[in-house]
Amino acid sequence: MPLEWSSCPPELLLVIDRSGGPPLRAQVEHGLRDAIRTGRVRVGERLPSSRELARTLGVSRGLVQECYAQLQAEGYLVTRHGSATRVAAGAAAPAAVTRPPGTASRLLADFRWGVPDLGAFPIQDWLWATREAARVMPSADLGYGDPRGSRILREVLAGYLRRVRAGAADPEHIVVCNGYAQGVNLALQALADGGVRTVAFEDPGSPATVGACASAAGLRAVPVPVDAHGIDVAALAATDARAVVVTPAHQWPTGVALAPERRLALVAWASDHDAIIIEDDYDAEFRYDREPVGALQGLAPDRVISLGTVSKSLAPGLRIGWMICPPELVAALTEHKLRSDRGTSTLDQLALARLIESGRFDRHLRRMRATYATRRTALLGALAEHAPEVPVTGLAAGFHAVAHLPGDADEHHVVTTARERSVGLYGMSACRASTAATPAQIVLGFGDVGERAITEGIAAIGHLLGGRPESPSR
Amino acid sequence: MPLEWSSCPPELLLVIDRSGGPPLRAQVEHGLRDAIRTGRVRVGERLPSSRELARTLGVSRGLVQECYAQLQAEGYLVTRHGSATRVAAGAAAPAAVTRPPGTASRLLADFRWGVPDLGAFPIQDWLWATREAARVMPSADLGYGDPRGSRILREVLAGYLRRVRAGAADPEHIVVCNGYAQGVNLALQALADGGVRTVAFEDPGSPATVGACASAAGLRAVPVPVDAHGIDVAALAATDARAVVVTPAHQWPTGVALAPERRLALVAWASDHDAIIIEDDYDAEFRYDREPVGALQGLAPDRVISLGTVSKSLAPGLRIGWMICPPELVAALTEHKLRSDRGTSTLDQLALARLIESGRFDRHLRRMRATYATRRTALLGALAEHAPEVPVTGLAAGFHAVAHLPGDADEHHVVTTARERSVGLYGMSACRASTAATPAQIVLGFGDVGERAITEGIAAIGHLLGGRPESPSR
Repeated sequence: MPLEWSSCPPELLLVIDRSGGPPLRAQVEHGLRDAIRTGRVRVGERLPSSRELARTLGVSRGLVQECYAQLQAEGYLVTRHGSATRVAAGAAAPAAVTRPPGTASRLLADFRWGVPDLGAFPIQDWLWATREAARVMPSADLGYGDPRGSRILREVLAGYLRRVRAGAADPEHIVVCNGYAQGVNLALQALADGGVRTVAFEDPGSPATVGACASAAGLRAVPVPVDAHGIDVAALAATDARAVVVTPAHQWPTGVALAPERRLALVAWASDHDAIIIEDDYDAEFRYDREPVGALQGLAPDRVISLGTVSKSLAPGLRIGWMICPPELVAALTEHKLRSDRGTSTLDQLALARLIESGRFDRHLRRMRATYATRRTALLGALAEHAPEVPVTGLAAGFHAVAHLPGDADEHHVVTTARERSVGLYGMSACRASTAATPAQIVLGFGDVGERAITEGIAAIGHLLGGRPESPSR
Repeated sequence: MPLEWSSCPPELLLVIDRSGGPPLRAQVEHGLRDAIRTGRVRVGERLPSSRELARTLGVSRGLVQECYAQLQAEGYLVTRHGSATRVAAGAAAPAAVTRPPGTASRLLADFRWGVPDLGAFPIQDWLWATREAARVMPSADLGYGDPRGSRILREVLAGYLRRVRAGAADPEHIVVCNGYAQGVNLALQALADGGVRTVAFEDPGSPATVGACASAAGLRAVPVPVDAHGIDVAALAATDARAVVVTPAHQWPTGVALAPERRLALVAWASDHDAIIIEDDYDAEFRYDREPVGALQGLAPDRVISLGTVSKSLAPGLRIGWMICPPELVAALTEHKLRSDRGTSTLDQLALARLIESGRFDRHLRRMRATYATRRTALLGALAEHAPEVPVTGLAAGFHAVAHLPGDADEHHVVTTARERSVGLYGMSACRASTAATPAQIVLGFGDVGERAITEGIAAIGHLLGGRPESPSR
């Protein structure tokens, strides 16, 4: 008896594994689907009758009929009354798979910024906190809850922020979000809804991030210069911005703290212009010379959206942050959070609450403050030895510093030459709105670089920073 | 010696606790900040000299000076050379706290839709999976990773979706997101960037959700009717939409499966109109009469963005979902995910991967399939007894059904009267683009309602559904 299809006999179409593989029905169905997808049976091609295929494969006819019915329901096959079963016209083969290029090779030291010591993440404390949170969590908490976030976490955060950041934090005005990135998006969207058309940002700062978020929200983003006292409020007042993104406690990336008179001027600007200040309070937990400067939000709770995150204090991979919102903006920010993703993972929120409440979060911060202080000392020591002519600033807090290269230095050359020596350096140009590479500066992140790597890395490239030829002893 | 400030003597301003409270320095600083915030010391008011305050409080003068310096740095105080320290002009009191109204009272039965059995969430399995994931996770995974999500989860999901949903899933084309809500947002944003101006959605369906996301992305949203075979593809083709959001496996909320010829027609429409189908594959895991219909994505991987979620299979509170993207859209969707929140929690992703890989996810699904089948039977039984004249449809999969009320029934009346009987009912009007309440239908969710509550709830309101007066025996 001749087969009713020519290009692909059943035994090629389907391989049945009877040695304890998946159920026969699943094998036949998946095999057929696969054959259609990969183009082994072509569109319009006629399949064998269920009787024929059943005989060839040694399975029951009913089983084949079930498979045909399933694939027909899924649109892979068409059966017209009294006619054969054929491959449906829409059942196209998927596109070819593309693979990404291999990852970068390992570096001797990678001074990339913005990453804390990932190896020091208190994983056992986190697992403990998750377990504890799960133990007492009512199952209703696993549903769609308050889009602002868990009441428990908002209360714990309010207490924590009042205590540590001097924020005027009320649980009712906190919206939990997925780190700073989501927070700044939601803030700009809500402000755009409220009629803001232009948002200012610090220069140097994060032009790419703020620019992209502003553009997505339909806002114009304008840079405002930062000097040794922080953002230039007079220059800000000369723009038409009615919102500004600032890093008052530890300016990113210059590391200066917003000077007291500037803090007041900024708040006055916001009052006078009916404007909102978006405060990025990203790494204030780590200040070395004195207590961190309190959050600007505490000064003007009606004018500041304060964005906090555990990305620097714990790890970016947790994706947890929060916004302390002016009371008038709580509803709009909640609405945007709801629309964006309906809330942040409940169990993660409750685990963070437990971690803070238990004192383990503070203990971790104390430990990390000591770690970063040691690395900071190692960095300063290595630079003093290998690049003594290079001034370093911005080290009062956090875990990055700015190295000021000599006047004729070429940022791009320094970065690429360092990379050849297996040292990752990152230039200030990426932080400038103009992307200018002068004055030549390198932003040295040391959060996730061990002391030894810091010392060896700076030893390998210190001469580059100083604009000197490699010392002959090396 | 007269105090230099009149309204608030130091002993009222500050209460020092020497019986083992926080350090004195912290008490003084926080006390002062609090006094300024709450308006106990007014703007412009002069503070006592550091010497005076130190004497009154019985602390060292240096301590008070440090506190003043800190509050000056934070902008609460101003000190002009040779003049007294005063409360700064910008140091406003925070707005009054508002509290939300109390939560609703408990219901006998709440037939709200879209929520699975939260009490059955396999919390021990989830904690186990989190622990296992943490045990082998390289610390680098806690940094900012691939915005598409963990490679491990994407591989596990690809295998799972190929096996269970017949998706043409490649890990390179999967983007992990925070549930369906974020997925549909990112999809519509990416399509808007690509030139799409109008998106169609099923009617009845989720007009509010799709409408809000479309509007945020700058898109027009148009409803397309759903009949007994699913979305009306001819009506879709008559619109100018170049994207459509559909629920092919189990239409929300009617419960019909998209008919085979409609599946093909829909794919052909997408091909002909250079359009994209956004497939909301929300509860296909739970099909009672046969294997779930495979994902539409498997039929036309170049034309379909398939959105999956664990909100129905595990719990909404986890906020994990995924998108299988057409290869051409992977970059745009990844960019939007990156910009939106830089990725989903790594540890949660790895825990989900471990849960699926270990077979515990499948075991949970099997258990839940049995649970929902039992509840479905209880619902049908209760309706047969207490509202025998009410047809019920849409029960082939998932955990909701549609009750069709008599022609003269008033949805609003039925819902409010049921609420008076402590039974939560939800009308179809919220699912209709027109918000029309006719034909009167009730969408009965039974995912998170126990058998006994189902039986008692329907007994209490069955006569309302049938449009009959309460039976005298009750």
